Amino acid sequence: MKFVAFRTQSETHLGVVKENHILDLHTLEKLSKNNNSAAFFIANDLKQLIEQSETVLPYVRTLLKNKDEVSEKSGDVLFLISEVEILAPIAQPEKIICVGLNYLDHCKETGLEPPASPVIFSKYANAIIGENAAIELPINSNQVDFEAELAIVIGKEAKCVTEEEAEDYIFGYTIMNDVSARDLQFTDGQWSRGKSADTFAPIGPTVVTKDEVGDPHNLDISLCLNDEIMQQSNTKNLIFNIPYIVSFLSQSMTLKPGDIIATGTPPGVGMGRNPQIWLKDGDQVSITIEKIGTLSNHVKKNHSKLRASIKKEIQI
Amino acid sequence: MKFVAFRTQSETHLGVVKENHILDLHTLEKLSKNNNSAAFFIANDLKQLIEQSETVLPYVRTLLKNKDEVSEKSGDVLFLISEVEILAPIAQPEKIICVGLNYLDHCKETGLEPPASPVIFSKYANAIIGENAAIELPINSNQVDFEAELAIVIGKEAKCVTEEEAEDYIFGYTIMNDVSARDLQFTDGQWSRGKSADTFAPIGPTVVTKDEVGDPHNLDISLCLNDEIMQQSNTKNLIFNIPYIVSFLSQSMTLKPGDIIATGTPPGVGMGRNPQIWLKDGDQVSITIEKIGTLSNHVKKNHSKLRASIKKEIQI
Repeated sequence: MKFVAFRTQSETHLGVVKENHILDLHTLEKLSKNNNSAAFFIANDLKQLIEQSETVLPYVRTLLKNKDEVSEKSGDVLFLISEVEILAPIAQPEKIICVGLNYLDHCKETGLEPPASPVIFSKYANAIIGENAAIELPINSNQVDFEAELAIVIGKEAKCVTEEEAEDYIFGYTIMNDVSARDLQFTDGQWSRGKSADTFAPIGPTVVTKDEVGDPHNLDISLCLNDEIMQQSNTKNLIFNIPYIVSFLSQSMTLKPGDIIATGTPPGVGMGRNPQIWLKDGDQVSITIEKIGTLSNHVKKNHSKLRASIKKEIQI
Repeated sequence: MKFVAFRTQSETHLGVVKENHILDLHTLEKLSKNNNSAAFFIANDLKQLIEQSETVLPYVRTLLKNKDEVSEKSGDVLFLISEVEILAPIAQPEKIICVGLNYLDHCKETGLEPPASPVIFSKYANAIIGENAAIELPINSNQVDFEAELAIVIGKEAKCVTEEEAEDYIFGYTIMNDVSARDLQFTDGQWSRGKSADTFAPIGPTVVTKDEVGDPHNLDISLCLNDEIMQQSNTKNLIFNIPYIVSFLSQSMTLKPGDIIATGTPPGVGMGRNPQIWLKDGDQVSITIEKIGTLSNHVKKNHSKLRASIKKEIQI
């Protein structure tokens, strides 16, 4: 299944994508019950659904199986994708964990040594935006770059799990653009600030359950900037594979349902080019990953002025 | 006011500390209303209260002013601190932002240059624990260290605010122990993993509103390990002060109500000593900050075994 969060006028919904339509899960459930019960089993929020996925997923599958009968009863259950606003599938994960330098050729283009163990850094939820939303260039950076990444969505609490067990803890996969302000990232040394500006984590458009993805280590991944292919690779080129990343992280931190783990980016980012390419007002960025979909966002200049002396010298 | 989250049997409450007692806010509100209204203005969660603090804080102050009359009606409103379980005041902030190397003498002991601008790194909410909870030594580290820090609690959304405006966006202050696995921190280069193991962010015991703290740049701060003073300084020694940190961060990321910003640690951490000192099973760590309080936690060994090949070589 491909889960999607979307908005119609002021209401937000959770749905499942079927071709160019979305089935609204709450309405589907309501119709299936013939309005006899007020209680909904399906949360209207993907993170909550994932928390209960062991019981709710089979129920959703049953509803979908019987949907033809139901959808004839009402038009409210089906929405054209082109007519709704797609939101980020998960708005408030506890963690957005990023793996750096996880494609060998990307290490080369950054001039950094391939790591002996995964390099882990963070984004905060303030950075999350959905499909078609604008990546805003922050007022304190002139070097904003793109990074196409396959992202894992955690399905249940994982602490100290082995590589062999790891797949059990995965709900599915999505796409993340690990937008990066290179000037902030490398001036700071620590990457948190340069990686977590508002709008720097476009995610979506859907979360695809793992059964539909099959082997996550054999997916074509590419990024287009204004119709030019900038990144093109396959997830078989990951240095650290997905069970390893999940097991590695879980040795010290509890992974929670809805946590997002971005697995690293292949070569071709703007920083590694000659001349370097930075995102600018009006650019269009699209990431496509086989079996997952395409995540598209445009770039917008922020017209505010710097409101702080951010290049202050040390006060000692 | 000193806000505190606490648990009695299975229920969690939000309260205000008065000497050695806690006033339960929900019960206080209920009694003040003579049970006439079902709707509560005061959320039973500090992050939610902060989100509505402009209207709710004056209301809470009025309730407290009239409390003597109310508290005679029922014993349920007052709890002895010693008889309840104190929880972390905020369990799920969107962000825990940490400022590194923000005391000059601490830079010297780590052998790192004082930064030209604040070094920013992250913890995730999985790391949060409250007063008296155990700091668990993770199975993949042998060098767990302590760091006493004054933490800012954000009061309202802040984006691109100036230093002069920054104080308006602060709700209050608390204490954080920035527990750090030095081996993971420095092997990785990026600090996220070594800083965000489960239990690595003891926070509390209370959040003190800014009016009770006054000048946050003149507070004694100290840390005791098993009754020996290890860190002792004053927040006047911060390299980057609090309005500057808030303004600096807000230039690229929106700060949200309940966000926690730890302002850095003074000298005396275990890593900087000769011989170095690492936390071990049974240790007791207490941080005291003037006008804020004392945050105490013990240290517990994790008896699990490593369940992954975490020192894997690169697969290329």
